[in-house]
Amino acid sequence: MATAGQVIRCKAAVAWEFNQPLVIEEVEVAPPQEKEIRIKIVATGVCQSDLYFLSKCSNQTAFPVVFGHEAAGVVESIGPGVTEFQPGDTVIPLFMPQCRECRLCKSPKTNLCVNGCPLRSFERSRISCKGRKLLQFLGTSSFSEFTVVKEMSAAKIDPAAPLDRVCLIGCAICTGYGAAVNTAKVEAGSSCAVFGLGAVGLAAVMGCKAAGASRIIAVDINPDKFEKAKVLGATDVVNPNDHSRPIQQLLQEMTGGGVDFSFECIGNVEVMRSALESCAPGWGVSVIAGWTDMENFSAPPIHLMTGRKWTGTLFGGEKWISASEPAMVRAYLDRKLMVDEFITHNLRLEQINEAVELMKNVLYH
Amino acid sequence: MATAGQVIRCKAAVAWEFNQPLVIEEVEVAPPQEKEIRIKIVATGVCQSDLYFLSKCSNQTAFPVVFGHEAAGVVESIGPGVTEFQPGDTVIPLFMPQCRECRLCKSPKTNLCVNGCPLRSFERSRISCKGRKLLQFLGTSSFSEFTVVKEMSAAKIDPAAPLDRVCLIGCAICTGYGAAVNTAKVEAGSSCAVFGLGAVGLAAVMGCKAAGASRIIAVDINPDKFEKAKVLGATDVVNPNDHSRPIQQLLQEMTGGGVDFSFECIGNVEVMRSALESCAPGWGVSVIAGWTDMENFSAPPIHLMTGRKWTGTLFGGEKWISASEPAMVRAYLDRKLMVDEFITHNLRLEQINEAVELMKNVLYH
Repeated sequence: MATAGQVIRCKAAVAWEFNQPLVIEEVEVAPPQEKEIRIKIVATGVCQSDLYFLSKCSNQTAFPVVFGHEAAGVVESIGPGVTEFQPGDTVIPLFMPQCRECRLCKSPKTNLCVNGCPLRSFERSRISCKGRKLLQFLGTSSFSEFTVVKEMSAAKIDPAAPLDRVCLIGCAICTGYGAAVNTAKVEAGSSCAVFGLGAVGLAAVMGCKAAGASRIIAVDINPDKFEKAKVLGATDVVNPNDHSRPIQQLLQEMTGGGVDFSFECIGNVEVMRSALESCAPGWGVSVIAGWTDMENFSAPPIHLMTGRKWTGTLFGGEKWISASEPAMVRAYLDRKLMVDEFITHNLRLEQINEAVELMKNVLYH
Repeated sequence: MATAGQVIRCKAAVAWEFNQPLVIEEVEVAPPQEKEIRIKIVATGVCQSDLYFLSKCSNQTAFPVVFGHEAAGVVESIGPGVTEFQPGDTVIPLFMPQCRECRLCKSPKTNLCVNGCPLRSFERSRISCKGRKLLQFLGTSSFSEFTVVKEMSAAKIDPAAPLDRVCLIGCAICTGYGAAVNTAKVEAGSSCAVFGLGAVGLAAVMGCKAAGASRIIAVDINPDKFEKAKVLGATDVVNPNDHSRPIQQLLQEMTGGGVDFSFECIGNVEVMRSALESCAPGWGVSVIAGWTDMENFSAPPIHLMTGRKWTGTLFGGEKWISASEPAMVRAYLDRKLMVDEFITHNLRLEQINEAVELMKNVLYH
């Protein structure tokens, strides 16, 4: 493209300070360097993790930064040494890439990567504004019309995919779906409970259904979520506020002793404990898929000594994300995976603070 | 035997009150009723769980009670309907029996039993003293020369077994060994850390070795334990008090990122967290084998989100304990399982308060 090798001036939503509105600024996006690609972002989701670091957890956030990590776009240009991409390729940026060479990548048991998992990462970047380098959140920064990522931090997808939809596969859908099918390994005929029906939770419901669960209990304090949960596979919906007894007791009663699998898709340590306690003693598996590291979870040892298992997931435990993202996009195009149902709003970049407020309202409803 | 059908008068160590010395009393042991057997206890271990309910956790203990649950003996007489035992059979009483009929027994995933797992159980009993019924702790009460248990609460073992040794298979050895081979499913070539080198911890070391672990790091603040740990299979011994940095950091350094499997064999919630944090992100499995329910454990969610698994074990996760106990006794007789190494003292029933004090000293060393 004509812009290859040039600095691109474009718009981005810049977070200059903690817990302040994002500011739409003209930014400069440098050309990609060795093994990097520059992407024109076509669509991005707004994830609770962006909000978490923007306005909830001050001591782990660095500024100024461009947030956004759940997106889809088109490769504008490539840096030296790039072999996997060409300009014009349709891609999903990966906030949790895998180098395929480290000791973690070489284990079949984890999708972590020594070189590629930038949890809480605020990296030096190719984006600057008013003479200042802006940090790139999780190595992606999709709240910009253009961004630069490492070659390994992108997955090539079918160009036929509608990018304003499949962008959600870049985080929420893969995380929730994978929590069920990869991390928990939900079994056919099993009972499941999903706590929190944001996009991750709804995707977990979908994953439980895909795995053949016979009972999928969707739990949220916002009853507006229930209809979609049912569309995605929930067999029961429960609002804890409708019941005087604790949700874990209710779920144990509903299932004759507890669910086989439970999922915390909020990032709330109290709910994590409820999810664990909703599991059947003996074999119940509880998966933490909602992000927080501001507080510790806690529980009585007996909950684990009686055979429950507590674990968690990042990016749904998909081993090779650069392969699984295209596969999920393909499944969507083949009508084997629901994505459209996850879309609640379509906004322009200039409306990003509205999007942030919508997220807050959902979270604190 | 001549005593069949008769009340037996014998000695027992009675706990009349919380945190008071046990009292050797003459007790009356009634004949076994429907599907019960009366056992002459030949040898019993003293377990930290006895001590826990005797002197640590007052709000879950009931008195008067006869403690003791890790024992071996000979069937004196049987009640009506008993088909599995005859007088003269050599047995290990089971504090966690299995009915083989409930929904838990029917699952291959757990050794819990709806009808047989008397966690914290203080049952009505066949033992009385001075006109008062004494409770039976965990349905066993081996701190008595005779006791009565349900038919399903005993395992028939090889009569050639030395009962003053194999009694330890009735709790500690099975729990620790099984924590490694059944619950954690330790893999050949893996690295393991065992926290706490009491009998459960030493047995966990032995289980890790039997499973083919290539690195077994035994951790205790009492260096007197290290020699036995090495005999049982430890490749490294670590005293956390010898190091200024936290034990979990040390173990991560020693193993290049954390152990594959860790075991908490003490019942200390702080150590539970250290054991979890010693595990490798991505796949580390941490098993709680030490009993406490006075405090909750806690940890940051990220420890699980990065793929660690936290679980626990009761009786080492052995599915059918009445079968596994005889098998372990057989393995001992065949010199495939070490038991003699676990014996530290031999005392008479009259010396039971000395045994309790020895346990306290070990625990609080």
